[in-house]
Amino acid sequence: MSDEGRSGLLAGLRVIDCTHMLAGPYCTWMLGGLGADVIKVEMPGRGDFTRGVAPFLDGQSIYFLSVNRNKRSLTLNLKTEQGRALFRRLVETADVLVENNRPGVMARLGQGYAELAAVNPRLVYASVSGFGQTGPYHTKPAFDVVVQALSGMMSITGEPDRPPARVGASIGDIGASLFATVGILAALQERSRTGRGTYVDVAMLDCQLALLENAVARFLNAGDLPRRLGSRHPLIAPFQAFPTSDEPLVVCVDTEEQWARLCHALERPALATDPRFADGTARVQNHAALEPILIEAFRCRSRKEWLPILEAADLPCGALNSIADAVRDPQVVSRGMIVEVSGDGTTARFSGIPIRTPTYGPGGETRAPRLGEQTDAILAELGVSPDAIAALRRDGVV
Amino acid sequence: MSDEGRSGLLAGLRVIDCTHMLAGPYCTWMLGGLGADVIKVEMPGRGDFTRGVAPFLDGQSIYFLSVNRNKRSLTLNLKTEQGRALFRRLVETADVLVENNRPGVMARLGQGYAELAAVNPRLVYASVSGFGQTGPYHTKPAFDVVVQALSGMMSITGEPDRPPARVGASIGDIGASLFATVGILAALQERSRTGRGTYVDVAMLDCQLALLENAVARFLNAGDLPRRLGSRHPLIAPFQAFPTSDEPLVVCVDTEEQWARLCHALERPALATDPRFADGTARVQNHAALEPILIEAFRCRSRKEWLPILEAADLPCGALNSIADAVRDPQVVSRGMIVEVSGDGTTARFSGIPIRTPTYGPGGETRAPRLGEQTDAILAELGVSPDAIAALRRDGVV
Repeated sequence: MSDEGRSGLLAGLRVIDCTHMLAGPYCTWMLGGLGADVIKVEMPGRGDFTRGVAPFLDGQSIYFLSVNRNKRSLTLNLKTEQGRALFRRLVETADVLVENNRPGVMARLGQGYAELAAVNPRLVYASVSGFGQTGPYHTKPAFDVVVQALSGMMSITGEPDRPPARVGASIGDIGASLFATVGILAALQERSRTGRGTYVDVAMLDCQLALLENAVARFLNAGDLPRRLGSRHPLIAPFQAFPTSDEPLVVCVDTEEQWARLCHALERPALATDPRFADGTARVQNHAALEPILIEAFRCRSRKEWLPILEAADLPCGALNSIADAVRDPQVVSRGMIVEVSGDGTTARFSGIPIRTPTYGPGGETRAPRLGEQTDAILAELGVSPDAIAALRRDGVV
Repeated sequence: MSDEGRSGLLAGLRVIDCTHMLAGPYCTWMLGGLGADVIKVEMPGRGDFTRGVAPFLDGQSIYFLSVNRNKRSLTLNLKTEQGRALFRRLVETADVLVENNRPGVMARLGQGYAELAAVNPRLVYASVSGFGQTGPYHTKPAFDVVVQALSGMMSITGEPDRPPARVGASIGDIGASLFATVGILAALQERSRTGRGTYVDVAMLDCQLALLENAVARFLNAGDLPRRLGSRHPLIAPFQAFPTSDEPLVVCVDTEEQWARLCHALERPALATDPRFADGTARVQNHAALEPILIEAFRCRSRKEWLPILEAADLPCGALNSIADAVRDPQVVSRGMIVEVSGDGTTARFSGIPIRTPTYGPGGETRAPRLGEQTDAILAELGVSPDAIAALRRDGVV
């Protein structure tokens, strides 16, 4: 696979990927899935740590396979002079570099922004880290749960009077992946005006604060300390899960029209004129009275009976699905959100990229590379001869 | 405020914002914060529904104020011929349009992608919706908790043997905001190659699946059904919250070196050579034996005593903060993640945009507009005379 013949929104862009684990790789997975030529640079003989994380499919880590789709792998030992020289030749050909090492690591390898901007002033160089490149914690290590904890995200996730829960998905990492992708693409816009690249600094902790905008805004401007509410919303009611005679469902009411329609759907028309529940603010304030009435009402029928009734009333509602239910949900299937990726003796299924245009859609993702799988091809693109490649391999440079 | 003198990565881009509630406005908040000129188009006399959502600061909704920073407000009644004509004149000047109405609504107003691409073929037109523009659910309404439930996100958030919990932040909406922003900026890259805009379709439900990549990948390729684990990680241990003699903390161990350092920090050196906990896979498998040992160890000291010990061992760790703790955390403060926005008689504080470059950073955000606050200025920019504006206002068009 070369970058010839690639299509996608980002066709023609080349990304050097010095990432590992999750926050960096998820960003470059997206960039590659959107059509960029992503070259993952890995240490010879070792590679990304997550290549060794269980569970495995046909001997390869499922964790690694998922977030390293749409990339090519080049092994390069950046601790050697020859490795650094080759890396700089690669940088000359690139539009973007993404790394998520601890602050200072890239500079110690001679590959910090200042060094590489001198080689290629058009380079957009993005660093994703736990705490950012500045501030008292900037050299500290961080994993997902650390920033979920420090940011207050966990303090508002879970049930009242129970311990805080981690968001089940790795939103500490992936939140940063998404903002880094936005930052990189925004910096490319700037480059289209100025002709110059820049350095993009994204911190996992900062991104959690940004995801928490409403909780932060309410606390700082209304003095309302957000807390854990189970499945509820802090400002809207009802907007939560309810048990039924069998499986739970969720339903939301925002406007007064929706509230009236819910009361009729539940065959509790008197509720619609109950002054305790007259508007959204009243329903939030009187939630302790409201919830048991609704729980009792929903208990009379099964979920399969309730959903068509709620849908007929045009109310936002749905099943509380497991992951197994979700991946076979008719809407998820119809949207092509589960993609199959084959090759190298494996066929695997993953979540796809949730962006559609008339010419870009699901599918077309390529499998994650074996360690160094495209080393020869990429070096040949840089003009390195087969003999020189063999020598580099012998010397442990690639 | 006109677009003259604006700076930021997206300076020079004009965005028409036909969004309301959260999933759309958060996207355009970012675009505006990154330097685009964002014009929020609202119905005269009514405006975005969230202008009425409690709690309020100086009579204005905190919810609205937070996610409508960095925008100008133009009232325009798109149900009138004159309103539609003015809207098309605005579209001629724009690079991007973002809307999050239910599929079909914009087309019924005569402002679907086909109509507007005829006016401005360079327009990137993004629709954010609950379920997307296609598929069996596409006309159904959706709120945050509905897609958190349907996607399986809630099924893996919360404690084992307790009900599923909603992620405390509105990740159902904001996940879609982030992918939509990526899609818009990627489509602008494509436009820079082809000269043509496109239509970007982003669904809240699809985005939840993408955030759940690891859970989906494990289920589909290893048959491992992800479930609720409280504060734990499914693949790494220990990677969770622990009580101490006072306040809880989180700590993570991934490599064997980290594990050895934790055992020594806890003054439990024998654990480091215990074969049950020899590597990451073993520690996950034997978590039921591991957890009580670690709980007991952490109980001997306070959090304030433990954190320096864990930090000295270079272990990822941190306090389990409330939102109040988080906004005054030294790192959060140092990074400038809490921004103050003043004007129109209010001073409010919010989360900022978590993207830093050498020339772009925190601060410089502008307060959310009053309904129609910049109507006259924007119409004047389109060449509408003061007399004509007065007539439009008299006729209820603006």
